[in-house]
Amino acid sequence: MPSTALLTDHYELTMLQAALRGGTAHRRSVFELFARRLPEGRRYGVVAGVGRALDAIEDFRFDDESLAVLRDGNVVDESTLEWLAAYRFTGDIWGYAEGDAYFPYSPLVIVEGTFAEAVLLETLLLSIYNHDSAIASAASRMTQAADGRPCIEMGSRRTHEEAAVASARAAYVAGFASSSNLAARQRYDVPTAGTSAHSFTLLHDTEADAFRAQVDSLGVGTTLLVDTYDIAEAVRLGVEVAGTGLGAVRIDSGDLGVLAHQVRAQLDSLGATATRIIVTSDLDEYAIAALASAPVDGYGVGTQLVTGSGHPTSGMVYKLVARGSGQPGDDGELVSVAKKSTDKISVGGRKFALRRRRPNGTAEAEIIGIGTPPVDDGDDRDLLVQLVRGGEVVGREPLSAARDRHVAARAELPLEAQQLSKGEPVIETVHLP
Amino acid sequence: MPSTALLTDHYELTMLQAALRGGTAHRRSVFELFARRLPEGRRYGVVAGVGRALDAIEDFRFDDESLAVLRDGNVVDESTLEWLAAYRFTGDIWGYAEGDAYFPYSPLVIVEGTFAEAVLLETLLLSIYNHDSAIASAASRMTQAADGRPCIEMGSRRTHEEAAVASARAAYVAGFASSSNLAARQRYDVPTAGTSAHSFTLLHDTEADAFRAQVDSLGVGTTLLVDTYDIAEAVRLGVEVAGTGLGAVRIDSGDLGVLAHQVRAQLDSLGATATRIIVTSDLDEYAIAALASAPVDGYGVGTQLVTGSGHPTSGMVYKLVARGSGQPGDDGELVSVAKKSTDKISVGGRKFALRRRRPNGTAEAEIIGIGTPPVDDGDDRDLLVQLVRGGEVVGREPLSAARDRHVAARAELPLEAQQLSKGEPVIETVHLP
Repeated sequence: MPSTALLTDHYELTMLQAALRGGTAHRRSVFELFARRLPEGRRYGVVAGVGRALDAIEDFRFDDESLAVLRDGNVVDESTLEWLAAYRFTGDIWGYAEGDAYFPYSPLVIVEGTFAEAVLLETLLLSIYNHDSAIASAASRMTQAADGRPCIEMGSRRTHEEAAVASARAAYVAGFASSSNLAARQRYDVPTAGTSAHSFTLLHDTEADAFRAQVDSLGVGTTLLVDTYDIAEAVRLGVEVAGTGLGAVRIDSGDLGVLAHQVRAQLDSLGATATRIIVTSDLDEYAIAALASAPVDGYGVGTQLVTGSGHPTSGMVYKLVARGSGQPGDDGELVSVAKKSTDKISVGGRKFALRRRRPNGTAEAEIIGIGTPPVDDGDDRDLLVQLVRGGEVVGREPLSAARDRHVAARAELPLEAQQLSKGEPVIETVHLP
Repeated sequence: MPSTALLTDHYELTMLQAALRGGTAHRRSVFELFARRLPEGRRYGVVAGVGRALDAIEDFRFDDESLAVLRDGNVVDESTLEWLAAYRFTGDIWGYAEGDAYFPYSPLVIVEGTFAEAVLLETLLLSIYNHDSAIASAASRMTQAADGRPCIEMGSRRTHEEAAVASARAAYVAGFASSSNLAARQRYDVPTAGTSAHSFTLLHDTEADAFRAQVDSLGVGTTLLVDTYDIAEAVRLGVEVAGTGLGAVRIDSGDLGVLAHQVRAQLDSLGATATRIIVTSDLDEYAIAALASAPVDGYGVGTQLVTGSGHPTSGMVYKLVARGSGQPGDDGELVSVAKKSTDKISVGGRKFALRRRRPNGTAEAEIIGIGTPPVDDGDDRDLLVQLVRGGEVVGREPLSAARDRHVAARAELPLEAQQLSKGEPVIETVHLP
């Protein structure tokens, strides 16, 4: 795997240099990755990117090529380069498990190590969590709005080509059925799907030629795109070519609700009662919800998914919350630290995090504190799992586990979590003591 | 280089299979990449990603690993896999040069080849252009608002880790002075910059310790972050530690305009008249413009840059606009094709594109047509350059050329292009004949 080490801000390395020189680099440190708030109006957030972050940490090494870049650019001095050449994260990381819900100040990742080794991971961890959680948080609203009908992720062309792969993965965590992205299949076993575009129809002399070529090659179970010319004519033609066993038709323009009703009636009248209707065309969670009463069998979602439905990033930050005292004889005692600026408050100290639940299982608060967690009355759910121990990744899991966890975590939330309208987070974050 | 071939939508390959089977795959085809509109209210767009697209096309090969994914997943049949194993784009590509401005329906990329070879590039080209142009278009507004003061790209942590590298590159094309992203230095020679974060100050027992460590290691020319505790005290301390030769101070919170005036007065009173003031903290083009009268020497821009300042994607599409007739004896005559749906119109045919300019050099229209361009009266600028000829990349250029081109292309636009307020594109797109 190529090194991920330079996917990093310049200042992480100049800070490292200054701390190495000043003798503070080896102070034991606790960094926390969290969001001060959810995107405006959102009821809950969804943690995603955990598995990708673990891969990226394993590949975070300064190889000869990286070191040459830093040397040639005079980014840091020789003694820092030497230190970097030997770098490997050897600390511990805890975090929320992938697919879980999160709220303001949920300590999504806690990194413990020396300042030097922990600060270097800042940029990369934030990039991954900020992006992937933004996509998963939007995706969760969409799958909720779809209420059991499959959502298909088709946004690759609307975002950076690698962000596309991560988006497909994050959408899958949050309940999407499949993706158009083949690299997501390759890397993460995300099921992929897709049939044809308008260009395929236009390539042929007639729509009938195009449909015949598609059905001949891909079988009658294929999905025919029916809005290149006239929808009613295309639907008639599709059933003529494929028979009543035609898999599905896709509508990619127009008033989807009205068209879905018309096409359903036409398909039924032609005897193609099992032929499904897939709709696409700038769908978001609101458009999906608006189609709830339309005879739609699946939603293809593109732009709005990969841009986080208005919130393409999660606003997460990575803050030093505690560090060794630096005193002689310091046996690991940590001092809580926090910035004092009035508009950006961090809460100092190494945290615990619990989701408090009512006896019926409904979440009622995010309990966060420093020190010993309160005695569990049986309804609390511990939210932090160990991801890295002594530098070794221990928190890897199949993506299906994250997918299952998301279903459970979302089901646990109060009913208001299902509202698409703007509002406050559905549970409050309570800081103890 | 790893293959880019699977950064592609599933349906490109199923269309290919059906077209191979049906005998239409080898029809000569012209695809066009364009945007039907600019993001709402924007006056112009900026083309970026051209160089990245050329790299990606060169690496677009189906290697054994990619083919195994497609075989194991039953994505396409064996004869299609065989065809893919030998795939290499052998056609021609023309496009707008990187850094140029664009408008609705500007033919940003024109791909000529067989249907089979041209359709496969759709997803990847769109991913790159949609992303990079969105970032460059936002960046151009920011550098314009900054009016000569340097803008520093610092958004890596707010976007996917690879999108971050592309964002740094796109911002540089559109006039940013530097980036925090080290991989952008490695891959594209984008200058990088950065000094320290709040965590560095908090790591130390006192702010004075932190400043001393930083200045000792990085020199007095460094930038000290002065808003961890009390700004006035930090500025006093910074000059005490570094002397009046202190390079810069960075303010990352609060009312930046008010604080910049206060800090400037304090620095001047301490004799640090050459110490610069860098501001950061959720800046966008509007915030930058609002600070025009404040004594600010540089803007660090993060979230709003990498999310395209409200428009994280460009809405570009890739459409088949012309194809061979498929008739016996067809000697390359092309038939224009276009979808008929009322809300998504494409204009058929292989295009030319000119920027018509008044005698004083100001752009007045984007002239697009099919066939022979009008006779140039000396003021038109041809917008299409050949990027790929017979499968070979011929349009590669240093990034500095794109950067220079952007300055010239922006200067050529009517004055209204400098307005940040919402409005229509500053020149009209005229379709000839």
